[in-house]
Amino acid sequence: MLIYIAGAGAMGCRFGYQLLKNGQDVILLDNWDAHIAAIQSRGLEITGDKTDTVHIPIMHPTEATQKADLIILFTKAMQLPTMLQEIKQIIGPRTKVLCLLNGLGHEDVIRQYVPLKDILMGVTIWTAGLEGPGKAILAGTGTINLQSIDPNGKGDAEQIVTILNGAGLNAIYDDDVLPNIWRKACVNGTMNPTCALLECNIGQFFATDEAPIMVKNIIHEFVMVGEAKGIALDEDEITKYVMDTSVKAAHHYPSMYQDLVQNHRPTEINYINGAVARMGKQLNIATPYCQMITDLVLAKQQILGIK
Amino acid sequence: MLIYIAGAGAMGCRFGYQLLKNGQDVILLDNWDAHIAAIQSRGLEITGDKTDTVHIPIMHPTEATQKADLIILFTKAMQLPTMLQEIKQIIGPRTKVLCLLNGLGHEDVIRQYVPLKDILMGVTIWTAGLEGPGKAILAGTGTINLQSIDPNGKGDAEQIVTILNGAGLNAIYDDDVLPNIWRKACVNGTMNPTCALLECNIGQFFATDEAPIMVKNIIHEFVMVGEAKGIALDEDEITKYVMDTSVKAAHHYPSMYQDLVQNHRPTEINYINGAVARMGKQLNIATPYCQMITDLVLAKQQILGIK
Repeated sequence: MLIYIAGAGAMGCRFGYQLLKNGQDVILLDNWDAHIAAIQSRGLEITGDKTDTVHIPIMHPTEATQKADLIILFTKAMQLPTMLQEIKQIIGPRTKVLCLLNGLGHEDVIRQYVPLKDILMGVTIWTAGLEGPGKAILAGTGTINLQSIDPNGKGDAEQIVTILNGAGLNAIYDDDVLPNIWRKACVNGTMNPTCALLECNIGQFFATDEAPIMVKNIIHEFVMVGEAKGIALDEDEITKYVMDTSVKAAHHYPSMYQDLVQNHRPTEINYINGAVARMGKQLNIATPYCQMITDLVLAKQQILGIK
Repeated sequence: MLIYIAGAGAMGCRFGYQLLKNGQDVILLDNWDAHIAAIQSRGLEITGDKTDTVHIPIMHPTEATQKADLIILFTKAMQLPTMLQEIKQIIGPRTKVLCLLNGLGHEDVIRQYVPLKDILMGVTIWTAGLEGPGKAILAGTGTINLQSIDPNGKGDAEQIVTILNGAGLNAIYDDDVLPNIWRKACVNGTMNPTCALLECNIGQFFATDEAPIMVKNIIHEFVMVGEAKGIALDEDEITKYVMDTSVKAAHHYPSMYQDLVQNHRPTEINYINGAVARMGKQLNIATPYCQMITDLVLAKQQILGIK
């Protein structure tokens, strides 16, 4: 089975590494030249829970030619359309495409390149870090929930679940994956823009008197919009999940903080709170909290000269 | 006429200086020891449009004993209750109290210490700076609009207008001062928390793609709440006024930026957007944009350890 990892950041490296070690044919695709050069010359170096170095093929997306059996999408949200455009040539009639990106609404983008019957949507709570080109830090454990958008694709999807589990990735076929995707988006939508704007870690934000009401207001908008789209969401359960996550991840600086504050890179705000605000507008549901925090993050990007 | 300036920051120094030069009996009241010591030993030093040094009495509020003819309130909003408590002894049956603080809702606080018939509410667009204890920078020009809350107080208030004009302060009696107070609050409510959170000047904020919609959303809430309180506000005119001000003040960092980012001091957010959110709650008017930006500024204060 030929598996491409489209987007070989920290998470792409984790998945590529674990699948390769399990004997799968894996090719990483990325556009970061220094990362490609490092992995091609020294191999992919793993630290964290274990230390290892593996030789794993990596190339620019446009260099890939062989049709894929499986493509795992792991780009940043805003890179997705370009990535899909660049890997069109490896999407064949038997290619399955599994989306594990953070955020909401990616299926609408993927549909433009992949028949509905071949799209799998998923969500993962695995984490990973990159400490430089070719160097991944893998620690802790996680899970994957995934589902075929087309119910007839369940059988094929279950084979992919088996392959992921062979690689120790704790996947399950989830007949109702969308609520879990929205649930994770609520975690990102409450912690990421707030910590990025306030320049603090998750514990510092949640320790403020204002955090609980801000979190509640943001989650409420996600739930209203999600339910209008037919996704059953339990507001109380999600709030508890977010609060529990905030305790576990208290010392963590969310990815949006890293993007905006540390690395002055574009954030994924348009695919998290911004996506809810956009859908809210279409559905005539007020989403002022999501809109305001999206606008503030976008304004901050511009003030910092981030393009 | 004995005039106390209660709060001898930059603006208090400007008013005290100009009234003193015009021959009025002026006493500055403040709690900043270094500022008091500097003015008592070296005098109040003026730079900017002109250079001057004047000897002007200054003391702690609790040290003032002689009943006032006029008290001009010029504290930071959150210092107002303490100041009123500390100057109770100089408020007599013939004392007029003129409030020129930024923000909304101060009349409700002043009423607890001063009979309604003696309260004048005002708004000024004069500016001033302090470059250290005892050193005021006075540049540019401005105006004052003021009104007696009790219409029967108009005659006395007009005498105060005459005194202020004698000192070159360009005052007018305004039979409808509240809309002007709210108009200025809209300027503060759109520029201050945004520039403070985004750590930028007014021009940088207004140059972002998101500024116009954020400004519009915030002004709309001020207008809805103000109108529910019986204050006639012209949303289009206020929006134009805010946009015009943003052009004139493009290079300026608003006071809330100075407080939060530069000096790590408490901001006036609870008396600007926070006041609108509180009033909105009482009136059952949704004010999510004011609420969210207030919560973000308050959270930032806590994260910075500002008390």
